[in-house]
Amino acid sequence: MFSVTVRDHFMVAHSFRGEVFGPAQRLHGATFIVDASFRRAELDADNIVVDMGLAGQELAAVLGDLNYRNLDDEPDFTGVNTSTEALAKVVADRLADRVHAGALGEGARGLDGITVTLHESHVAWASYERPL
Amino acid sequence: MFSVTVRDHFMVAHSFRGEVFGPAQRLHGATFIVDASFRRAELDADNIVVDMGLAGQELAAVLGDLNYRNLDDEPDFTGVNTSTEALAKVVADRLADRVHAGALGEGARGLDGITVTLHESHVAWASYERPL
Amino acid sequence: MFSVTVRDHFMVAHSFRGEVFGPAQRLHGATFIVDASFRRAELDADNIVVDMGLAGQELAAVLGDLNYRNLDDEPDFTGVNTSTEALAKVVADRLADRVHAGALGEGARGLDGITVTLHESHVAWASYERPL
Amino acid sequence: MFSVTVRDHFMVAHSFRGEVFGPAQRLHGATFIVDASFRRAELDADNIVVDMGLAGQELAAVLGDLNYRNLDDEPDFTGVNTSTEALAKVVADRLADRVHAGALGEGARGLDGITVTLHESHVAWASYERPL
Amino acid sequence: MFSVTVRDHFMVAHSFRGEVFGPAQRLHGATFIVDASFRRAELDADNIVVDMGLAGQELAAVLGDLNYRNLDDEPDFTGVNTSTEALAKVVADRLADRVHAGALGEGARGLDGITVTLHESHVAWASYERPL
Amino acid sequence: MFSVTVRDHFMVAHSFRGEVFGPAQRLHGATFIVDASFRRAELDADNIVVDMGLAGQELAAVLGDLNYRNLDDEPDFTGVNTSTEALAKVVADRLADRVHAGALGEGARGLDGITVTLHESHVAWASYERPL
Repeated sequence: MFSVTVRDHFMVAHSFRGEVFGPAQRLHGATFIVDASFRRAELDADNIVVDMGLAGQELAAVLGDLNYRNLDDEPDFTGVNTSTEALAKVVADRLADRVHAGALGEGARGLDGITVTLHESHVAWASYERPL
Repeated sequence: MFSVTVRDHFMVAHSFRGEVFGPAQRLHGATFIVDASFRRAELDADNIVVDMGLAGQELAAVLGDLNYRNLDDEPDFTGVNTSTEALAKVVADRLADRVHAGALGEGARGLDGITVTLHESHVAWASYERPL
Repeated sequence: MFSVTVRDHFMVAHSFRGEVFGPAQRLHGATFIVDASFRRAELDADNIVVDMGLAGQELAAVLGDLNYRNLDDEPDFTGVNTSTEALAKVVADRLADRVHAGALGEGARGLDGITVTLHESHVAWASYERPL
Repeated sequence: MFSVTVRDHFMVAHSFRGEVFGPAQRLHGATFIVDASFRRAELDADNIVVDMGLAGQELAAVLGDLNYRNLDDEPDFTGVNTSTEALAKVVADRLADRVHAGALGEGARGLDGITVTLHESHVAWASYERPL
Repeated sequence: MFSVTVRDHFMVAHSFRGEVFGPAQRLHGATFIVDASFRRAELDADNIVVDMGLAGQELAAVLGDLNYRNLDDEPDFTGVNTSTEALAKVVADRLADRVHAGALGEGARGLDGITVTLHESHVAWASYERPL
Repeated sequence: MFSVTVRDHFMVAHSFRGEVFGPAQRLHGATFIVDASFRRAELDADNIVVDMGLAGQELAAVLGDLNYRNLDDEPDFTGVNTSTEALAKVVADRLADRVHAGALGEGARGLDGITVTLHESHVAWASYERPL
């Protein structure tokens, strides 16, 4: 099994609802450093998993829709706790949509899965892994 | 599949028995930077894998029982080579016990597994992965 | 010249005023990973720059006053752009106050200076350096 | 499941053929930071996955055959795009050959698999995972 | 004293002349991860050292002139050993030219100095520091 | 001003004397990741600060005299608290001796200074800077 990973980041405000979150129930913020991994069993005709340049561009586009925003005000997240793990799924699912739409190239249709990891600090991160 | 990881560290002395260990048969030491990952198929009612705050506290408690010690003098490790990979299992198993005892919250009983990675330097690390 | 550095982090929301900030004029957020360095020409009687444990505690206390907040709502920052470099000075000055108040121990009165670096992402950080 | 990972690096020139590579079709170069992971279900009689010292030596030997070279001139890569993911497989397969030849010790014959990750920058890396 | 740093990278082929370089006399390559720091005594009217966005853009432009090239073929480097430390000076000097030309904004004319660090691997890097 | 840095590590046991050290008064251990920086105003005839290969070899030799040892048993450290900052000075001074003895090459006699940083964990490190 092969994989290719590209890294980028976004910076948002948000708050959480639920006692489990303690002081994070207050409006605060985070830098999320994002690692998006694409995997497949065999390389394509160019001997690659996916066009790394396109992968980076599409990841930047997905993060651009989230960056420099207060997630509490975004309609997509109304009533949703935008935890690190939940946001990892959002990014992975949006990347999957772009793969299926052909935005990562025709070769990318052979991808088997995506894993997205969001680092919220140097001591905490979360991942979501899904098939394609 | 989702996962959440928290990082902490501990600092111990120890020695190894067996020619394979070369100069590490002498009493020496290590800083182990520890990444503890908790995974589950679906998020809980708070939209999280586990309470990251509790996860960090429990990891700190597990490492606190090892920290600033000479492992050669610890009854738990009598006659045992405390290799990085073996210590990864010790930490993972002790975290699993705490999950089962409810120390990571009731929601954590839905966890599927734990992976613990111990970094002994910038060029070497070891992991142990187990179900819950 | 000797120095000792301890690392911690805080997570805040904020916004900027001024065209130079582009989309960062919107309410967003950041994780700031903070490196606080203490320096002195000679070591103290214990052969250290400063008690690392106390240094870490006092850094955590300084960051605790900022953590999980919207800086736009904090009276200390009314009308102030809380840029990464400006926040580095805030943290350094508050640490300096604690050193002068004796919170880092009597030996810490021999410190010559403090440098604080705030990492806002894996590709951008800022520092402020001052004497004591 | 246990794993042990060792890190090293090599520095090469190469070029790619195919429009997908854009400006990387020109002769350029890369530092590849290499993480080689060895995994097995149970530890051996010394309580380890593999002799970390031997693992590091054999990885260094494999990388030594690639280091400080122009891969476009290497007979092994004639007509091959030496992408990061393709090189990860080359390193993994050569390590597997050494395991099978006994170079990592008799105990290493109990290994279940190898994963090799090549980091081409701080924002891009690729992996290849195989059984043994 | 304040500073702001932005990180980017470039990937080149090159070779060295001189016995001191050993096997690096052969044509090989490197990924250089570049940290460009800008420093000044006081913040500007926007409470910043420099527009981080512009700093990142100009760094990317400077590195774009080097990226995906064989430095042995570049007229700028004829007869020059493009060591990591020498390339750090090239990047710093080109950034200084851009500051002086106003490309980093009018406020950037108040900068006191630039430091550029090039990381050639996880175990080796070099810096050049200059006034403005 | 130019500098070149090489990284290596060593793993030791030790204990501290003095109440300020709390539980670190017990025999414990550490991995020290060591960054040794060499600086000079102008590059030498080969366009370098120092032969990086030799610098790495000499650093490895200095660390080899400390590695896999209990510092409490080393005659060089009798009655000395081997704090991270104190060990940074030991490594820097021993490297300086080697520079003066010509072990880093004749060109290295033009070096202006050395800085050594020892990382004891991902959240704490110490440095010592000296002229040559």
